[in-house]
Amino acid sequence: MGRTSDARPKILRAGQDLLAQRGYTALGVAEICSAAGVPKGSFYYFFDSKQALAEAVIEEHWAGQHAEWAALLGSDKPPLERLRDLFDATTEVQRAAQKDTGAVTGCLFGNLALELSAKDEAIQRRLQEIFEQQITMVTAVVELAQQEGTIAVPDTREAARSLVAQLEGMVLFAKLMNDPGQLDQLWSHTLALLGARA
Amino acid sequence: MGRTSDARPKILRAGQDLLAQRGYTALGVAEICSAAGVPKGSFYYFFDSKQALAEAVIEEHWAGQHAEWAALLGSDKPPLERLRDLFDATTEVQRAAQKDTGAVTGCLFGNLALELSAKDEAIQRRLQEIFEQQITMVTAVVELAQQEGTIAVPDTREAARSLVAQLEGMVLFAKLMNDPGQLDQLWSHTLALLGARA
Repeated sequence: MGRTSDARPKILRAGQDLLAQRGYTALGVAEICSAAGVPKGSFYYFFDSKQALAEAVIEEHWAGQHAEWAALLGSDKPPLERLRDLFDATTEVQRAAQKDTGAVTGCLFGNLALELSAKDEAIQRRLQEIFEQQITMVTAVVELAQQEGTIAVPDTREAARSLVAQLEGMVLFAKLMNDPGQLDQLWSHTLALLGARA
Repeated sequence: MGRTSDARPKILRAGQDLLAQRGYTALGVAEICSAAGVPKGSFYYFFDSKQALAEAVIEEHWAGQHAEWAALLGSDKPPLERLRDLFDATTEVQRAAQKDTGAVTGCLFGNLALELSAKDEAIQRRLQEIFEQQITMVTAVVELAQQEGTIAVPDTREAARSLVAQLEGMVLFAKLMNDPGQLDQLWSHTLALLGARA
Protein backbone atom coordinates (compact mmCIF):
# COMPACT_ATOMS: atom_id res chain seq x y z
CA MET A 1 0.00 0.00 0.00
CA GLY A 2 0.99 3.58 -0.66
CA ARG A 3 0.61 4.76 2.92
CA THR A 4 3.96 3.29 3.80
CA SER A 5 6.57 5.69 5.06
CA ASP A 6 8.14 6.30 1.66
CA ALA A 7 4.97 7.25 -0.24
CA ARG A 8 5.14 10.94 0.63
CA PRO A 9 8.73 11.48 -0.56
CA LYS A 10 7.93 9.45 -3.69
CA ILE A 11 4.97 11.70 -4.49
CA LEU A 12 7.01 14.82 -3.76
CA ARG A 13 9.82 13.64 -6.00
CA ALA A 14 7.48 12.75 -8.87
CA GLY A 15 5.63 16.04 -8.38
CA GLN A 16 8.86 18.01 -8.56
CA ASP A 17 10.07 16.22 -11.72
CA LEU A 18 6.73 16.54 -13.48
CA LEU A 19 6.22 20.19 -12.46
CA ALA A 20 9.66 21.01 -13.83
CA GLN A 21 9.04 19.15 -17.08
CA ARG A 22 5.39 19.91 -17.81
CA GLY A 23 4.26 22.80 -15.64
CA TYR A 24 1.34 22.98 -13.22
CA THR A 25 -1.77 23.28 -15.38
CA ALA A 26 -0.97 20.34 -17.66
CA LEU A 27 -0.49 18.03 -14.69
CA GLY A 28 -3.08 15.70 -13.18
CA VAL A 29 -3.07 13.85 -9.87
CA ALA A 30 -3.43 10.52 -11.71
CA GLU A 31 -0.24 11.20 -13.66
CA ILE A 32 1.66 12.13 -10.51
CA CYS A 33 0.48 8.92 -8.78
CA SER A 34 1.45 6.83 -11.77
CA ALA A 35 4.95 8.38 -11.89
CA ALA A 36 5.34 7.96 -8.14
CA GLY A 37 4.02 4.39 -8.21
CA VAL A 38 1.43 5.01 -5.51
CA PRO A 39 -2.38 4.66 -5.55
CA LYS A 40 -4.60 7.77 -5.63
CA GLY A 41 -5.82 7.13 -2.07
CA SER A 42 -2.25 7.47 -0.94
CA PHE A 43 -1.92 10.85 -2.65
CA TYR A 44 -5.01 12.19 -0.93
CA TYR A 45 -3.84 10.77 2.40
CA PHE A 46 -0.87 13.14 2.25
CA PHE A 47 -2.14 16.03 0.11
CA ASP A 48 -5.54 17.74 -0.14
CA SER A 49 -5.10 18.68 -3.79
CA LYS A 50 -2.69 19.23 -6.65
CA GLN A 51 -2.26 22.77 -5.30
CA ALA A 52 -1.25 21.43 -1.89
CA LEU A 53 1.32 19.16 -3.53
CA ALA A 54 2.69 22.07 -5.60
CA GLU A 55 3.04 24.12 -2.41
CA ALA A 56 4.89 21.24 -0.73
CA VAL A 57 7.16 20.83 -3.78
CA ILE A 58 7.95 24.56 -3.67
CA GLU A 59 8.84 24.35 0.05
CA GLU A 60 10.98 21.25 -0.49
CA HIS A 61 12.79 22.80 -3.45
CA TRP A 62 13.36 26.09 -1.65
CA ALA A 63 14.64 24.31 1.47
CA GLY A 64 17.29 22.59 -0.63
CA GLN A 65 18.15 25.63 -2.70
CA HIS A 66 18.23 27.92 0.33
CA ALA A 67 20.71 25.59 2.05
CA GLU A 68 22.90 25.52 -1.06
CA TRP A 69 22.78 29.29 -1.55
CA ALA A 70 23.53 29.86 2.15
CA ALA A 71 26.55 27.55 1.98
CA LEU A 72 27.97 29.08 -1.21
CA LEU A 73 27.23 32.71 -0.31
CA GLY A 74 28.37 32.22 3.31
CA SER A 75 31.73 30.64 2.50
CA ASP A 76 34.99 32.30 3.53
CA LYS A 77 35.96 33.15 -0.06
CA PRO A 78 36.04 36.77 -1.31
CA PRO A 79 32.48 38.02 -2.00
CA LEU A 80 32.69 38.01 -5.81
CA GLU A 81 34.01 34.44 -5.77
CA ARG A 82 31.03 33.39 -3.69
CA LEU A 83 28.67 34.91 -6.26
CA ARG A 84 30.58 33.14 -9.01
CA ASP A 85 30.24 29.83 -7.13
CA LEU A 86 26.48 30.41 -6.96
CA PHE A 87 26.11 31.13 -10.67
CA ASP A 88 28.40 28.23 -11.60
CA ALA A 89 26.30 25.89 -9.45
CA THR A 90 23.11 27.14 -11.13
CA THR A 91 24.58 26.53 -14.57
CA GLU A 92 25.63 23.05 -13.46
CA VAL A 93 22.07 22.21 -12.35
CA GLN A 94 20.74 23.11 -15.82
CA ARG A 95 23.51 21.15 -17.54
CA ALA A 96 22.75 18.10 -15.39
CA ALA A 97 18.99 18.38 -16.05
CA GLN A 98 19.60 18.39 -19.77
CA LYS A 99 21.89 15.38 -19.50
CA ASP A 100 19.33 13.46 -17.41
CA THR A 101 16.08 14.37 -19.16
CA GLY A 102 17.13 15.72 -22.57
CA ALA A 103 15.73 19.15 -21.74
CA VAL A 104 16.94 22.17 -19.80
CA THR A 105 14.17 22.39 -17.21
CA GLY A 106 14.89 25.96 -16.15
CA CYS A 107 14.06 27.50 -12.79
CA LEU A 108 11.08 25.90 -11.04
CA PHE A 109 10.23 29.21 -9.34
CA GLY A 110 10.53 31.25 -12.55
CA ASN A 111 8.44 28.72 -14.47
CA LEU A 112 5.68 28.75 -11.86
CA ALA A 113 5.89 32.55 -11.49
CA LEU A 114 5.02 33.05 -15.15
CA GLU A 115 2.49 30.22 -15.25
CA LEU A 116 0.56 30.97 -12.05
CA SER A 117 0.80 34.71 -11.37
CA ALA A 118 -2.72 36.19 -11.39
CA LYS A 119 -4.08 32.62 -11.32
CA ASP A 120 -3.12 31.16 -7.93
CA GLU A 121 -2.79 33.80 -5.26
CA ALA A 122 -1.29 31.59 -2.54
CA ILE A 123 1.47 30.24 -4.79
CA GLN A 124 2.12 33.68 -6.26
CA ARG A 125 2.53 35.15 -2.76
CA ARG A 126 4.94 32.39 -1.73
CA LEU A 127 7.03 32.83 -4.89
CA GLN A 128 7.19 36.58 -4.23
CA GLU A 129 8.65 35.84 -0.79
CA ILE A 130 11.15 33.34 -2.18
CA PHE A 131 12.47 35.73 -4.84
CA GLU A 132 12.73 38.52 -2.25
CA GLN A 133 14.66 36.12 -0.02
CA GLN A 134 16.99 35.24 -2.90
CA ILE A 135 17.58 38.95 -3.50
CA THR A 136 18.23 39.49 0.22
CA MET A 137 20.83 36.69 0.24
CA VAL A 138 22.60 38.12 -2.81
CA THR A 139 22.39 41.65 -1.38
CA ALA A 140 24.38 40.58 1.69
CA VAL A 141 27.30 39.46 -0.49
CA VAL A 142 27.05 42.50 -2.80
CA GLU A 143 27.31 44.64 0.33
CA LEU A 144 30.46 42.81 1.43
CA ALA A 145 32.01 43.46 -1.99
CA GLN A 146 30.97 47.10 -1.71
CA GLN A 147 32.50 47.40 1.78
CA GLU A 148 35.82 45.91 0.70
CA GLY A 149 35.82 48.32 -2.27
CA THR A 150 35.78 45.70 -5.06
CA ILE A 151 32.63 47.29 -6.49
CA ALA A 152 30.80 50.60 -6.15
CA VAL A 153 27.11 50.30 -7.01
CA PRO A 154 24.57 53.05 -6.23
CA ASP A 155 22.14 50.65 -4.49
CA THR A 156 23.20 47.21 -3.29
CA ARG A 157 19.68 45.71 -3.14
CA GLU A 158 18.82 47.00 -6.59
CA ALA A 159 22.11 45.57 -7.90
CA ALA A 160 21.24 42.21 -6.32
CA ARG A 161 17.77 42.39 -7.92
CA SER A 162 19.39 42.95 -11.32
CA LEU A 163 21.62 39.89 -10.79
CA VAL A 164 18.71 37.59 -9.96
CA ALA A 165 16.73 39.04 -12.90
CA GLN A 166 19.68 38.41 -15.22
CA LEU A 167 19.89 34.86 -13.93
CA GLU A 168 16.17 34.29 -14.58
CA GLY A 169 16.38 35.83 -18.06
CA MET A 170 19.42 33.78 -19.07
CA VAL A 171 17.89 30.58 -17.66
CA LEU A 172 14.77 31.36 -19.73
CA PHE A 173 17.00 31.49 -22.83
CA ALA A 174 18.75 28.25 -21.82
CA LYS A 175 15.38 26.52 -21.47
CA LEU A 176 13.95 27.94 -24.69
CA MET A 177 17.08 27.11 -26.71
CA ASN A 178 17.53 23.86 -24.76
CA ASP A 179 21.16 24.89 -24.48
CA PRO A 180 22.94 25.29 -21.12
CA GLY A 181 25.71 27.06 -23.09
CA GLN A 182 23.43 30.10 -23.05
CA LEU A 183 24.65 30.52 -19.48
CA ASP A 184 28.36 30.61 -20.38
CA GLN A 185 28.51 34.40 -20.25
CA LEU A 186 26.39 34.77 -17.12
CA TRP A 187 29.44 35.67 -15.07
CA SER A 188 30.61 38.41 -17.42
CA HIS A 189 27.09 39.91 -17.32
CA THR A 190 27.19 39.74 -13.52
CA LEU A 191 30.49 41.61 -13.42
CA ALA A 192 29.05 44.24 -15.78
CA LEU A 193 25.96 44.70 -13.60
CA LEU A 194 28.26 45.22 -10.62
CA GLY A 195 30.45 47.66 -12.54
CA ALA A 196 33.33 45.23 -12.02
CA ARG A 197 34.08 44.25 -15.61
CA ALA A 198 37.68 43.09 -15.78
CA MET B 1 -22.89 33.99 -38.16
CA GLY B 2 -19.27 33.90 -37.17
CA ARG B 3 -17.89 33.54 -40.67
CA THR B 4 -18.37 37.22 -41.29
CA SER B 5 -15.27 39.19 -42.11
CA ASP B 6 -14.57 40.26 -38.52
CA ALA B 7 -14.68 36.82 -36.88
CA ARG B 8 -10.99 36.05 -37.46
CA PRO B 9 -9.67 39.28 -35.87
CA LYS B 10 -12.15 38.83 -33.00
CA ILE B 11 -10.83 35.30 -32.35
CA LEU B 12 -7.22 36.49 -32.62
CA ARG B 13 -7.85 39.33 -30.19
CA ALA B 14 -9.61 37.11 -27.67
CA GLY B 15 -6.87 34.49 -28.09
CA GLN B 16 -4.16 37.04 -27.43
CA ASP B 17 -5.88 38.45 -24.32
CA LEU B 18 -6.62 35.01 -22.88
CA LEU B 19 -3.15 33.62 -23.67
CA ALA B 20 -1.60 36.61 -21.90
CA GLN B 21 -3.88 36.26 -18.89
CA ARG B 22 -4.17 32.49 -18.47
CA GLY B 23 -1.47 30.81 -20.51
CA TYR B 24 -1.81 28.13 -23.18
CA THR B 25 -2.55 24.91 -21.33
CA ALA B 26 -5.40 26.28 -19.21
CA LEU B 27 -7.17 27.60 -22.29
CA GLY B 28 -9.95 25.84 -24.23
CA VAL B 29 -11.39 26.60 -27.65
CA ALA B 30 -14.87 27.01 -26.12
CA GLU B 31 -13.57 29.73 -23.80
CA ILE B 32 -11.87 31.55 -26.67
CA CYS B 33 -15.09 31.43 -28.75
CA SER B 34 -17.15 32.69 -25.85
CA ALA B 35 -14.77 35.62 -25.26
CA ALA B 36 -14.68 36.39 -28.99
CA GLY B 37 -18.46 36.08 -29.31
CA VAL B 38 -18.26 33.63 -32.22
CA PRO B 39 -19.60 30.07 -32.58
CA LYS B 40 -17.23 27.10 -32.48
CA GLY B 41 -17.79 26.39 -36.18
CA SER B 42 -16.40 29.79 -36.93
CA PHE B 43 -13.26 29.07 -34.93
CA TYR B 44 -12.60 25.87 -36.84
CA TYR B 45 -13.31 27.63 -40.14
CA PHE B 46 -10.27 29.83 -39.52
CA PHE B 47 -8.04 27.67 -37.28
CA ASP B 48 -7.30 23.94 -37.25
CA SER B 49 -6.68 23.83 -33.52
CA LYS B 50 -5.80 25.78 -30.39
CA GLN B 51 -2.15 25.33 -31.41
CA ALA B 52 -2.84 26.93 -34.81
CA LEU B 53 -4.50 29.88 -33.08
CA ALA B 54 -1.57 30.26 -30.69
CA GLU B 55 0.81 30.29 -33.66
CA ALA B 56 -1.30 32.96 -35.35
CA VAL B 57 -1.41 35.02 -32.13
CA ILE B 58 2.39 34.79 -31.89
CA GLU B 59 2.79 35.99 -35.49
CA GLU B 60 0.31 38.84 -34.99
CA HIS B 61 1.97 39.92 -31.75
CA TRP B 62 5.45 39.73 -33.22
CA ALA B 63 4.41 41.67 -36.34
CA GLY B 64 3.21 44.52 -34.13
CA GLN B 65 6.15 44.35 -31.74
CA HIS B 66 8.69 44.06 -34.57
CA ALA B 67 7.26 47.20 -36.21
CA GLU B 68 7.43 49.10 -32.92
CA TRP B 69 10.99 47.93 -32.15
CA ALA B 70 12.09 48.79 -35.70
CA ALA B 71 10.63 52.30 -35.41
CA LEU B 72 12.16 53.00 -31.99
CA LEU B 73 15.55 51.39 -32.68
CA GLY B 74 15.74 52.90 -36.18
CA SER B 75 14.99 56.48 -35.17
CA ASP B 76 17.54 59.25 -35.74
CA LYS B 77 18.24 59.67 -32.02
CA PRO B 78 21.61 58.72 -30.49
CA PRO B 79 21.82 54.89 -30.06
CA LEU B 80 21.49 54.81 -26.26
CA GLU B 81 18.40 57.03 -26.43
CA ARG B 82 16.85 54.59 -28.89
CA LEU B 83 17.43 51.74 -26.45
CA ARG B 84 15.95 53.82 -23.68
CA ASP B 85 12.85 54.53 -25.82
CA LEU B 86 12.47 50.77 -26.33
CA PHE B 87 12.70 49.93 -22.63
CA ASP B 88 10.40 52.85 -21.69
CA ALA B 89 7.82 51.62 -24.22
CA THR B 90 8.04 48.10 -22.77
CA THR B 91 7.49 49.41 -19.26
CA GLU B 92 4.53 51.45 -20.53
CA VAL B 93 2.91 48.31 -22.04
CA GLN B 94 3.10 46.54 -18.66
CA ARG B 95 1.76 49.58 -16.83
CA ALA B 96 -1.17 49.83 -19.27
CA ALA B 97 -1.92 46.10 -18.99
CA GLN B 98 -2.13 46.38 -15.22
CA LYS B 99 -4.42 49.42 -15.49
CA ASP B 100 -6.71 47.63 -17.97
CA THR B 101 -6.84 44.12 -16.50
CA GLY B 102 -5.62 44.53 -12.92
CA ALA B 103 -2.61 42.31 -13.60
CA VAL B 104 0.81 42.84 -15.17
CA THR B 105 0.56 40.30 -17.99
CA GLY B 106 4.28 40.12 -18.71
CA CYS B 107 5.89 39.18 -22.01
CA LEU B 108 3.75 36.87 -24.16
CA PHE B 109 6.88 35.30 -25.68
CA GLY B 110 8.60 34.80 -22.33
CA ASN B 111 5.43 33.32 -20.79
CA LEU B 112 5.01 30.86 -23.66
CA ALA B 113 8.74 30.08 -23.73
CA LEU B 114 8.64 28.83 -20.15
CA GLU B 115 5.25 27.14 -20.51
CA LEU B 116 5.79 25.34 -23.82
CA SER B 117 9.53 24.63 -24.19
CA ALA B 118 10.03 20.85 -24.42
CA LYS B 119 6.26 20.50 -24.89
CA ASP B 120 5.44 22.07 -28.25
CA GLU B 121 8.33 21.88 -30.69
CA ALA B 122 6.86 24.14 -33.39
CA ILE B 123 6.05 26.98 -30.98
CA GLN B 124 9.39 26.55 -29.20
CA ARG B 125 11.26 26.84 -32.52
CA ARG B 126 9.32 29.97 -33.51
CA LEU B 127 9.98 31.59 -30.13
CA GLN B 128 13.69 30.80 -30.49
CA GLU B 129 13.69 32.68 -33.81
CA ILE B 130 11.79 35.64 -32.37
CA PHE B 131 14.17 36.05 -29.42
CA GLU B 132 17.18 35.76 -31.75
CA GLN B 133 15.59 38.44 -33.96
CA GLN B 134 15.06 40.67 -30.93
CA ILE B 135 18.71 40.20 -29.97
CA THR B 136 19.78 40.97 -33.57
CA MET B 137 17.77 44.22 -33.55
CA VAL B 138 19.28 45.31 -30.24
CA THR B 139 22.77 44.27 -31.40
CA ALA B 140 22.56 46.72 -34.33
CA VAL B 141 22.03 49.65 -31.96
CA VAL B 142 24.64 48.42 -29.46
CA GLU B 143 27.08 48.35 -32.39
CA LEU B 144 26.24 51.93 -33.29
CA ALA B 145 26.92 53.01 -29.70
CA GLN B 146 30.17 51.04 -29.80
CA GLN B 147 31.22 52.71 -33.08
CA GLU B 148 30.54 56.20 -31.80
CA GLY B 149 32.55 55.36 -28.67
CA THR B 150 29.75 55.80 -26.11
CA ILE B 151 30.32 52.23 -24.87
CA ALA B 152 33.07 49.63 -25.15
CA VAL B 153 31.73 46.09 -24.69
CA PRO B 154 33.79 42.98 -25.50
CA ASP B 155 31.05 41.40 -27.66
CA THR B 156 28.12 43.44 -29.00
CA ARG B 157 25.80 40.46 -29.62
CA GLU B 158 26.46 39.03 -26.17
CA ALA B 159 25.81 42.47 -24.66
CA ALA B 160 22.51 42.64 -26.58
CA ARG B 161 21.63 39.15 -25.31
CA SER B 162 22.26 40.30 -21.74
CA LEU B 163 19.94 43.29 -22.28
CA VAL B 164 17.05 41.17 -23.58
CA ALA B 165 17.64 38.66 -20.75
CA GLN B 166 17.57 41.49 -18.20
CA LEU B 167 14.33 42.74 -19.73
CA GLU B 168 12.77 39.26 -19.49
CA GLY B 169 13.96 38.79 -15.91
CA MET B 170 12.68 42.17 -14.77
CA VAL B 171 9.34 41.66 -16.56
CA LEU B 172 9.07 38.31 -14.75
CA PHE B 173 9.47 40.17 -11.43
CA ALA B 174 6.91 42.79 -12.52
CA LYS B 175 4.41 40.03 -13.34
CA LEU B 176 5.10 38.04 -10.17
CA MET B 177 4.89 41.12 -7.91
CA ASN B 178 2.07 42.57 -10.05
CA ASP B 179 4.03 45.80 -9.90
CA PRO B 180 5.21 47.66 -13.02
CA GLY B 181 7.43 49.71 -10.66
CA GLN B 182 9.78 46.69 -10.69
CA LEU B 183 10.87 48.04 -14.09
CA ASP B 184 11.80 51.51 -12.81
CA GLN B 185 15.51 50.66 -12.63
CA LEU B 186 15.62 48.76 -15.92
CA TRP B 187 17.48 51.60 -17.59
CA SER B 188 20.18 51.82 -14.92
CA HIS B 189 20.72 48.05 -15.26
CA THR B 190 20.95 48.48 -19.02
CA LEU B 191 23.62 51.16 -18.66
CA ALA B 192 25.53 48.90 -16.25
CA LEU B 193 25.40 45.97 -18.69
CA LEU B 194 26.79 48.26 -21.39
CA GLY B 195 29.51 49.57 -19.07
CA ALA B 196 27.97 53.02 -19.49
CA ARG B 197 26.87 53.73 -15.94
CA ALA B 198 26.62 57.52 -15.54
